Amino acid sequence: MTEQTPSPVGPRDSSATPRYAGHANFALLPGLDDVGRADVAVVGVPFDSGVSYRPGARFGPSHVRDASRLLRPYNPAQDVSPFAVQQVADAGDLIANPFDLDEAIEAVAAGSRELLERAGKLVTIGGDHTIAYPLLRTMAEKHGPIAVLHADAHLDTWDTYFGAPVTHGTPFRRASEDGFIDLTASAHLGTRGPLYGKGDLDDDAKLGFEITSSEFIEKHGVPAAVARLRERLGDKPVYLSIDVDVMDPAHAPGTGTPEAGGLTSREMLRIIRSLTDLNIVGADVVEVSPAYDHAQITGVAASHLVYELVSAMGRTAERRAEG
Amino acid sequence: MTEQTPSPVGPRDSSATPRYAGHANFALLPGLDDVGRADVAVVGVPFDSGVSYRPGARFGPSHVRDASRLLRPYNPAQDVSPFAVQQVADAGDLIANPFDLDEAIEAVAAGSRELLERAGKLVTIGGDHTIAYPLLRTMAEKHGPIAVLHADAHLDTWDTYFGAPVTHGTPFRRASEDGFIDLTASAHLGTRGPLYGKGDLDDDAKLGFEITSSEFIEKHGVPAAVARLRERLGDKPVYLSIDVDVMDPAHAPGTGTPEAGGLTSREMLRIIRSLTDLNIVGADVVEVSPAYDHAQITGVAASHLVYELVSAMGRTAERRAEG
Amino acid sequence: MTEQTPSPVGPRDSSATPRYAGHANFALLPGLDDVGRADVAVVGVPFDSGVSYRPGARFGPSHVRDASRLLRPYNPAQDVSPFAVQQVADAGDLIANPFDLDEAIEAVAAGSRELLERAGKLVTIGGDHTIAYPLLRTMAEKHGPIAVLHADAHLDTWDTYFGAPVTHGTPFRRASEDGFIDLTASAHLGTRGPLYGKGDLDDDAKLGFEITSSEFIEKHGVPAAVARLRERLGDKPVYLSIDVDVMDPAHAPGTGTPEAGGLTSREMLRIIRSLTDLNIVGADVVEVSPAYDHAQITGVAASHLVYELVSAMGRTAERRAEG
Amino acid sequence: MTEQTPSPVGPRDSSATPRYAGHANFALLPGLDDVGRADVAVVGVPFDSGVSYRPGARFGPSHVRDASRLLRPYNPAQDVSPFAVQQVADAGDLIANPFDLDEAIEAVAAGSRELLERAGKLVTIGGDHTIAYPLLRTMAEKHGPIAVLHADAHLDTWDTYFGAPVTHGTPFRRASEDGFIDLTASAHLGTRGPLYGKGDLDDDAKLGFEITSSEFIEKHGVPAAVARLRERLGDKPVYLSIDVDVMDPAHAPGTGTPEAGGLTSREMLRIIRSLTDLNIVGADVVEVSPAYDHAQITGVAASHLVYELVSAMGRTAERRAEG
Amino acid sequence: MTEQTPSPVGPRDSSATPRYAGHANFALLPGLDDVGRADVAVVGVPFDSGVSYRPGARFGPSHVRDASRLLRPYNPAQDVSPFAVQQVADAGDLIANPFDLDEAIEAVAAGSRELLERAGKLVTIGGDHTIAYPLLRTMAEKHGPIAVLHADAHLDTWDTYFGAPVTHGTPFRRASEDGFIDLTASAHLGTRGPLYGKGDLDDDAKLGFEITSSEFIEKHGVPAAVARLRERLGDKPVYLSIDVDVMDPAHAPGTGTPEAGGLTSREMLRIIRSLTDLNIVGADVVEVSPAYDHAQITGVAASHLVYELVSAMGRTAERRAEG
Amino acid sequence: MTEQTPSPVGPRDSSATPRYAGHANFALLPGLDDVGRADVAVVGVPFDSGVSYRPGARFGPSHVRDASRLLRPYNPAQDVSPFAVQQVADAGDLIANPFDLDEAIEAVAAGSRELLERAGKLVTIGGDHTIAYPLLRTMAEKHGPIAVLHADAHLDTWDTYFGAPVTHGTPFRRASEDGFIDLTASAHLGTRGPLYGKGDLDDDAKLGFEITSSEFIEKHGVPAAVARLRERLGDKPVYLSIDVDVMDPAHAPGTGTPEAGGLTSREMLRIIRSLTDLNIVGADVVEVSPAYDHAQITGVAASHLVYELVSAMGRTAERRAEG
Repeated sequence: MTEQTPSPVGPRDSSATPRYAGHANFALLPGLDDVGRADVAVVGVPFDSGVSYRPGARFGPSHVRDASRLLRPYNPAQDVSPFAVQQVADAGDLIANPFDLDEAIEAVAAGSRELLERAGKLVTIGGDHTIAYPLLRTMAEKHGPIAVLHADAHLDTWDTYFGAPVTHGTPFRRASEDGFIDLTASAHLGTRGPLYGKGDLDDDAKLGFEITSSEFIEKHGVPAAVARLRERLGDKPVYLSIDVDVMDPAHAPGTGTPEAGGLTSREMLRIIRSLTDLNIVGADVVEVSPAYDHAQITGVAASHLVYELVSAMGRTAERRAEG
Repeated sequence: MTEQTPSPVGPRDSSATPRYAGHANFALLPGLDDVGRADVAVVGVPFDSGVSYRPGARFGPSHVRDASRLLRPYNPAQDVSPFAVQQVADAGDLIANPFDLDEAIEAVAAGSRELLERAGKLVTIGGDHTIAYPLLRTMAEKHGPIAVLHADAHLDTWDTYFGAPVTHGTPFRRASEDGFIDLTASAHLGTRGPLYGKGDLDDDAKLGFEITSSEFIEKHGVPAAVARLRERLGDKPVYLSIDVDVMDPAHAPGTGTPEAGGLTSREMLRIIRSLTDLNIVGADVVEVSPAYDHAQITGVAASHLVYELVSAMGRTAERRAEG
Repeated sequence: MTEQTPSPVGPRDSSATPRYAGHANFALLPGLDDVGRADVAVVGVPFDSGVSYRPGARFGPSHVRDASRLLRPYNPAQDVSPFAVQQVADAGDLIANPFDLDEAIEAVAAGSRELLERAGKLVTIGGDHTIAYPLLRTMAEKHGPIAVLHADAHLDTWDTYFGAPVTHGTPFRRASEDGFIDLTASAHLGTRGPLYGKGDLDDDAKLGFEITSSEFIEKHGVPAAVARLRERLGDKPVYLSIDVDVMDPAHAPGTGTPEAGGLTSREMLRIIRSLTDLNIVGADVVEVSPAYDHAQITGVAASHLVYELVSAMGRTAERRAEG
Repeated sequence: MTEQTPSPVGPRDSSATPRYAGHANFALLPGLDDVGRADVAVVGVPFDSGVSYRPGARFGPSHVRDASRLLRPYNPAQDVSPFAVQQVADAGDLIANPFDLDEAIEAVAAGSRELLERAGKLVTIGGDHTIAYPLLRTMAEKHGPIAVLHADAHLDTWDTYFGAPVTHGTPFRRASEDGFIDLTASAHLGTRGPLYGKGDLDDDAKLGFEITSSEFIEKHGVPAAVARLRERLGDKPVYLSIDVDVMDPAHAPGTGTPEAGGLTSREMLRIIRSLTDLNIVGADVVEVSPAYDHAQITGVAASHLVYELVSAMGRTAERRAEG
Repeated sequence: MTEQTPSPVGPRDSSATPRYAGHANFALLPGLDDVGRADVAVVGVPFDSGVSYRPGARFGPSHVRDASRLLRPYNPAQDVSPFAVQQVADAGDLIANPFDLDEAIEAVAAGSRELLERAGKLVTIGGDHTIAYPLLRTMAEKHGPIAVLHADAHLDTWDTYFGAPVTHGTPFRRASEDGFIDLTASAHLGTRGPLYGKGDLDDDAKLGFEITSSEFIEKHGVPAAVARLRERLGDKPVYLSIDVDVMDPAHAPGTGTPEAGGLTSREMLRIIRSLTDLNIVGADVVEVSPAYDHAQITGVAASHLVYELVSAMGRTAERRAEG
Repeated sequence: MTEQTPSPVGPRDSSATPRYAGHANFALLPGLDDVGRADVAVVGVPFDSGVSYRPGARFGPSHVRDASRLLRPYNPAQDVSPFAVQQVADAGDLIANPFDLDEAIEAVAAGSRELLERAGKLVTIGGDHTIAYPLLRTMAEKHGPIAVLHADAHLDTWDTYFGAPVTHGTPFRRASEDGFIDLTASAHLGTRGPLYGKGDLDDDAKLGFEITSSEFIEKHGVPAAVARLRERLGDKPVYLSIDVDVMDPAHAPGTGTPEAGGLTSREMLRIIRSLTDLNIVGADVVEVSPAYDHAQITGVAASHLVYELVSAMGRTAERRAEG
């Protein structure tokens, strides 16, 4: 727990106000403006102008927040009270111009940089995966080239698409080229589905990534995958970027470029829980496209992923407080 | 415009923040706490424990607010800028116990009474129609027995259901018995569908209502219906209670007790616009059940009805300011 | 009221059992077996092997029954208590072989013939429109060539389709050729949408039909349409066959061959109510395909149409009792 | 097979009547009234006034019955013909007042008690989880404090919510306090998701439950979980209470309080099949909320769970007949 | 009929190939490449990067084509066989860069210009309304400033949005400023819903438009609206631009910025049929967003609008051939 | 690679035309007519007149093709570029009479036979499972009695249903009786759910099938199942017939007879990938019923299964070219 916030303000009292009433900050937490500053800020980026197939992720942040109404303050799986050991707050949405990709990217970079003056760490709710590029820029400004754990059905290291250098298919190539990524300690998780060519894999390796595919998990199981990730990530500060399409369409139908054969939500939760001793310095959960969701299946899964990420950060905070 | 609010605070600037970003107060208006007091407060009552068929209206207020993101500040149909001629604010949700009908009714009565200390008029978003009973009690406390214009497929003047005196099928019977309603100036609009017996009509008349049915509108048109309503309502202060099932299921699928043969949203909007010289002292729009809605059809229609009601109140404010 | 049933058994008591509980006979009425015989039997034909486009109407009868749970026993629009002035009962479903069109047609003919030994009149819930052919055969056996009022977006008088003489596009041609239809007193209502050629209209006229199109109603209004129908139908015994696609897709999305520009449910209800002095000797409501319905929009509309038909039959019963 | 029913009446002949035709008793079985008495009665409780979030489970029983139309009479996974070795019948729905939680609880207790005079065992389809409390009361009256196996994402041992002692979040606390539960032999299965605080776990243990979490199953597999359950349950008579939200939202979207990271339907079926040598004296499957279901995913899964439970009871019957 | 195509190639034979089989060219017509050139080409523009709210119209062209499978070759409402009196063909989709608005606009201008070398007239399926701007540029190049009939809930004459000069809210302002529009003969139809301010109306008038609102139609009827349009449009060559949100959300839920109180599909069809003596030289139907559609309600309505437009062009062709 | 097609024509260039634009051949591949002949032809059979429960699979081929737009040309899981090592083309749809099962079966037999003159192998997209019977006839004509690997929740070896010998529940019984199947080397995979009686299993064994059930996979894992299949299939030419209901309803909701407890899409993909050294001479993927699908979950899974099958055929082609 930081000194500035000796007694973190927790979520709204759900025994006084039903969970379905009122506005939905993430997990019914206070707004960042209400608490001034926070150890962890959850922030939305309603933006989807970088998508190549189904758009709609601009409605992702409000959808995930709405689905997060059921989250309660103690996480038994990590044995931590993430909103008590650190101040977590909802910082609202960063604004990104829907008509100008370049301007949007600059705005997300600037907005995240600014937020970090009031928050120790950010967990961002997308929006499409384009936003990982400016977020990684901000991370690199603070931490230097950063180890990236990228959970996604896709590599997102393609080059250009219709002439656009930064879209939701390219953020990790651009980030790698621009030196934001630790080339020795970055990894894809859950990759699957067809590629354009075998060369995609070579390019990807050169850009600094090691692949632990969905097929690997099917064959060798989650613990083997986690071991592989831990070896790759080492003890570097890590940025976790989760495209919800890493999960199977059964678990995340509400997304833009679905691929069969993905992870279950239970596997994704377990993986995050297996990495809580890492130093996660930032994270995002992206590509929730509500128009394709049903009964909040995707929204609930995404909100749980954000919750586990915040919990993992809480574990780190606890260790530091104890240590 | 009241003296207290010489320059009303209007909706969020949608050229700076896209309409799909951030929280959704009704029409992206300020919260009541942000402005202190208001001429008109829009307030939600997330409650559906009084329903006899499909529940789910507890999610109605947030659904209608979300669908109201597209509303803009000038209403050409009434030639009024409803958020400029009066301070309109979103008062959030009143809390009603989902497990205790009596307690919920008292809470809505108390909550609305309290709100009226900070707001000249209330427009309430339901919630099921049960809430009209405590809202009418509050109205009667302020105005005495009040003329009620009740737009609904159903009479809602049944007696008891499973022993419960106040449910979503009975609020107007109870309100009439308790003296909240002006027996000479109340009316149903859009009534249709089968009843339990012919006696329902006699009972209803004794409780103070005149019926202008959906069939009447089909046969004689909206102007004839409006004329009939005007004659009935006279120049009394009027409370408008709109169950969205007054509209056809094509126009309002997301509701709890749908009946074929209803009004179009265009007709409902026209009717409200035809009554803007009345003195509407309060209103509600109820029975939006989002789990049955599709593509916000019902949410958008409901949000437009609230907007027209607030606009009508703005016309009254304008006339007073001019007069 | 017939002598055999001096005191009709009405619907289940919905104040003792909530409408959403238990099985759904049509309008929660008794089964035909429970009452022995009935003045009017509502019967389902779950069959859709005659469709040329979207199948699924085999689930129509149970869907319409489920949507009929909200129907109450007094019809104010016709001022009749249809279940009190005559015994109405649910006769369950006739069985039709899904793999053999010919056998299915024979089974529906036989089944309906048999049912008429226990019921004065039948109102059939489809199933696709193929079933009108065997139902008209049964009608003609009883009444001779019968006046048909056919409400539908389509003529359903095409010749053959993929070699099959009786499908959902041809029942009225076959029925006309076989002498089941009164060639001087039959009519289409609500026809619209493109045809194969201008000759379709000539053929159709020769088969005994006069067309009152949806366009006619848009231009001249329902009363003009009703007048036209009354002149055509005269005082003959009439069979009403309603394809729910006569209504606009907004009012009946759950159907197999939707056409834009249709009637509202309110117009269809009004038209039936305008014809209650006719001698309606049988009727069907067909082509409800639940997989394409939403929030029971189509199911509710169809159940109301059945209810109005039964009510019209009740009016006739009343007149006879009085007369 | 009991003496009273030497030759059980099985399901409707689906080669004579298509599965999609007619009413849907569970698995197209006879009604309890048709057979007089039964070894196992499947009974619905259409009730959802105890829910804290998404309502709608009042439509659960009819939805699960409708989805059970495809069930056939031989269960190869358990090698038993559950409808041949014992009389199974559908007892229809118990009526529970939607407006009065206390009265509803009493009605379910009385109704289940009464049913047990005509049926050896009950398998109940909910309705929300509130109903487990009166059902356990009835069980305890017959069997004394009973071993409970409670499959659910949630503990359902919270204390009160908005002042109501018995809601869908509290039945097992109340049942434990009232002595209905064997404190040494009860267990939760599939628990996951955040809690209010660490103390929830202590409270829960005191109330008699051991937790085998969804996380445990992810890590250690189903056989380890089953071994743990068997050790806990011993050879006591067991009541199985299954909230469908024990399954992942991918497998059970149609429910009221979804949590990511749940069991697959295949795991749940396997678990029941692994416990068929237990003496299951009663069971329920609850919290199916059809408005949130899609393509009957949840309804089909729930109907299979009921089928496996009835099959397990059939195995017990067979063993007794043989023994 | 043009000389080049003495015997137009019509739609695929649906008695040989069922309508649900194979690819869906519009109305199952031949491709433009199959016939070389055409009197009327139907062309898609899958593009939605100009939207300010719900995206998804990039999937509009394939959705409308799929919904057009049921269209048949004779239009009784206009008494014309539109595919016989002129060669109509499907020209496929114009490609527009999803990441660069300016490039996309240029591509649509170039593509449409090129297409006009092989087709007499274009009917374009959007895509969002942004595309009207380049299409009008092409029209103006060919015809000079052109009379525009713009059917839409919105004015689409706003200025800029987030700095972008051409988006789906501004095409008609830009087109007017650039001289593409006949300022004396252009009109909006079906306008409704709130505006930013009263000044929007003044601006709009200066840009060359006269408004016939949805409210006007509700009050005065379609014939009065048509008369008004005819007076405004005179005998100029007319471009018809139809945003499907001109229809009520009940009739067109699958769109991006829905507004309650719109036209029925029947009214829209009637309006087009009332203008068939105009010289319609080009047209578009835009803003179909399939992710928000249900059961093709919007797709079917849009496909019928395209069909009526092509039919109207057929009437003109017929008149010329006769004249 | 065959001699006839030294340089296979691959999919459309998706960097020039967005994946959402234009017609959707499978994987955006060329049509068979475009390339003359192919090593592998993907062909649809839009037919569902053999279904016993939910119809709709007639729309399956176009739905799967639409969902295949995202497939790219390199398959990393099999390390093969399936469209480069062999010519793959989309052969469009075979036409099957919806009103005459016998004629449809003959047409599919004739059509597939004819296609094999232009294509080395067929991968068929259904349509309901009835079509496996004529496809197996064609296979047997070419290869003699063939080893069949049948992935399905159901045995599909029932005898007759409503008197029809060949429906979607019987193709493998008929094919076995007619000598199309290698009785020593055929297998079911993923079987589950209740049967009519224990005798179904004996019958099935006599017809030549060994069962590897879904329960087996849950208990013993995919590798054990694969080993079992390999032993059974040996090195025979194999026909793979995949009913998408082999997958759990969570992974394939859009199908006609769903059963809980099925395989994940990841398991199915792995199984196919584990069998790539088999000589797969033909395959089908059937029973996709789009009206019950959501967000293309089923369509995407089915398109990936087709892609893996085509990839496996590519591996065989590669081995031959190398060998």
